[in-house]
Amino acid sequence: MTPGTVPAPVQHDLADPALDVVELTRRVCDTESVSGGERALADAVESALRAWGALEVLRDGDAVVARTALGRGERVLLAGHLDTVPLTDPPNLPVRREQHPVDGDVLVGRGTCDMKGGVAVQLVLARETAAAVAAGRPPARDVTFVFYDHEEVEAARNGLGRLARNAPQALAADFAVLLEPSSAVVEGGCNGTLRAEVTTTGKAAHSARAWRGSNAIHAAAPVLARLAQYVPREVEVEGLVFREGLNAVGIAGGIAGNVVPDRCVVTVNHRFAPAFSAAEAEAHVREVFDGFDVRVTDAADGARPGLHLPAAAEFVRRTGTDPLPKFGWTDVARFSALGVPAVNYGPGDNATAHADDERCRVEELERCLDVLRGWLLGAGEGAA
Amino acid sequence: MTPGTVPAPVQHDLADPALDVVELTRRVCDTESVSGGERALADAVESALRAWGALEVLRDGDAVVARTALGRGERVLLAGHLDTVPLTDPPNLPVRREQHPVDGDVLVGRGTCDMKGGVAVQLVLARETAAAVAAGRPPARDVTFVFYDHEEVEAARNGLGRLARNAPQALAADFAVLLEPSSAVVEGGCNGTLRAEVTTTGKAAHSARAWRGSNAIHAAAPVLARLAQYVPREVEVEGLVFREGLNAVGIAGGIAGNVVPDRCVVTVNHRFAPAFSAAEAEAHVREVFDGFDVRVTDAADGARPGLHLPAAAEFVRRTGTDPLPKFGWTDVARFSALGVPAVNYGPGDNATAHADDERCRVEELERCLDVLRGWLLGAGEGAA
Repeated sequence: MTPGTVPAPVQHDLADPALDVVELTRRVCDTESVSGGERALADAVESALRAWGALEVLRDGDAVVARTALGRGERVLLAGHLDTVPLTDPPNLPVRREQHPVDGDVLVGRGTCDMKGGVAVQLVLARETAAAVAAGRPPARDVTFVFYDHEEVEAARNGLGRLARNAPQALAADFAVLLEPSSAVVEGGCNGTLRAEVTTTGKAAHSARAWRGSNAIHAAAPVLARLAQYVPREVEVEGLVFREGLNAVGIAGGIAGNVVPDRCVVTVNHRFAPAFSAAEAEAHVREVFDGFDVRVTDAADGARPGLHLPAAAEFVRRTGTDPLPKFGWTDVARFSALGVPAVNYGPGDNATAHADDERCRVEELERCLDVLRGWLLGAGEGAA
Repeated sequence: MTPGTVPAPVQHDLADPALDVVELTRRVCDTESVSGGERALADAVESALRAWGALEVLRDGDAVVARTALGRGERVLLAGHLDTVPLTDPPNLPVRREQHPVDGDVLVGRGTCDMKGGVAVQLVLARETAAAVAAGRPPARDVTFVFYDHEEVEAARNGLGRLARNAPQALAADFAVLLEPSSAVVEGGCNGTLRAEVTTTGKAAHSARAWRGSNAIHAAAPVLARLAQYVPREVEVEGLVFREGLNAVGIAGGIAGNVVPDRCVVTVNHRFAPAFSAAEAEAHVREVFDGFDVRVTDAADGARPGLHLPAAAEFVRRTGTDPLPKFGWTDVARFSALGVPAVNYGPGDNATAHADDERCRVEELERCLDVLRGWLLGAGEGAA
């Protein structure tokens, strides 16, 4: 992050009922909100939700929750994070609308893909839900909208995790949709992730008299060989095939240019199918590196797809697409851990997330909005 | 280095002719001189040399050279560095004289071994040479004493290298003794040293979709395997057997905990016998890592022992010990490059150099002084 190059956040009004999803995406993006700097955007979101009325609004730090209280027998939840990764230098904001040679009509700029397009979709839906309740045409299910902070940084600061601790009832639901970029295709569940350090040890010595020592980096040769030879599993869970992975994501060893090192640490990242618990994944990693010192540094369970549930099945049907497995760990796993089945479904190609030329197709913004509007408010059936 | 814990250098007088080698070692050590902070010690050495008279004294930065100008047909040179590695915290100074359970009567403290004991021996010999010249009993050979700075840091700052550039005539000699710690045994020549980076490349990708990338750390598996399997050569040069070595001294790779890395660098250090040039050593390293990207970052030729030369042979005979090969690269290679055959011979066990409990046996200090006194000034024959 290069604070000197980031313009001071300008808070754009989001409450004007005339704003369409494209203009809302632009305004949400231009209210810059790199992780830790979500305040201005959270304030604008809260102001708009309160201005629209009809929904209960809860603020927790820089997370905002709005929900109907219709007493329905079923509640669905939409969630998205307000923060982005740091801007580029020079800043990739304000948002520009362009013709992209492949993607066509796009919005370009930090957050357009990950995931302020999804936030804008949520805002339109919240506004329309409030209007429907006010007009005496309330939705058939209760609905909760969650906007949260600190998704792009270490898990301990994640705003959804904080809400789950501070206000778990605010996240209660029968089914959740996380509007992370998925190219407007339902991605069910997610793989779990586990990181471990595989450490080799030796005996330090001057490299001019190496025979007095034992080289810990040389001792890591079989660790790398096992990684190079490893064939990842493919595991079917509820009809979706999850591809796993086991990769070195870091290696470090060495004391000085003239010293035989006594320690080498290979950091590995195992992505495991939601058929397995983090404990089972750890056992697998320990088996792969049998004979070596293995220390798990962090692990998070994945999430089963849950697509057999009625609310999920109806939602998938409305998207008009075949669901895919989600390989990356996402906050759907937090919902899964709370007992709420969840899927990823949002505008934007995840391949451009975090990229300097991050972008989102306007057509996907509008399609996601239509699909979700139809599902929540009973309109737009067949719009996909 | 932790400057806060290092006492301000106190300059101790070294000129008093009543000081013996033990007291001189203590005073040279207590005049703290971590690399870059040699000024006070260099001043004290220069003052003493000028006070004793009879020798030409040259100052270059914090290096001091003193020499006879007797017009002899042969000149020998003694050299030692004034600097030390950083002190411990709390400081391992002032020097203490102790009974060590294995080594007996020792001086303990930073520099006692590496190599202020040798500097003190040089000072006694310079003082006695000056006195002998003044008394009309000049030595049979001209003699040069070199005290220099910045040996314990990067080669570019080495004071002996600077002298060789600024005042090469000051280093002219037929034979040189470097008083680095060698347990009072002649160590002939030295291995050369070469460092290289062996780099593997891949393609970065999110570790949740590793199949889209190519892991550079995994690609380093055969590099480590070749290192682990490598059998170092033993090469006889002029009767001494030099053990070589090829070791990883560092490894680094990794972008983030969720990214398949596209680059891994293994830093290797090759120690090669003085039978080979640095160019030949590079060819060997490139052969070992055939198929990989190899970049040599620094290389220094070793030094042949030169023990067949008359001045060297007489010196070895006086030590009463069998010479050994020197495995570590030392500044004898700088003399070798200047065309001056050189050996390592000094008090102190190199195994305690740089150690927190660095120490030197008093008996070795006195024995080295006796041997060198006999060789230079014609006394002490058989003292070893």
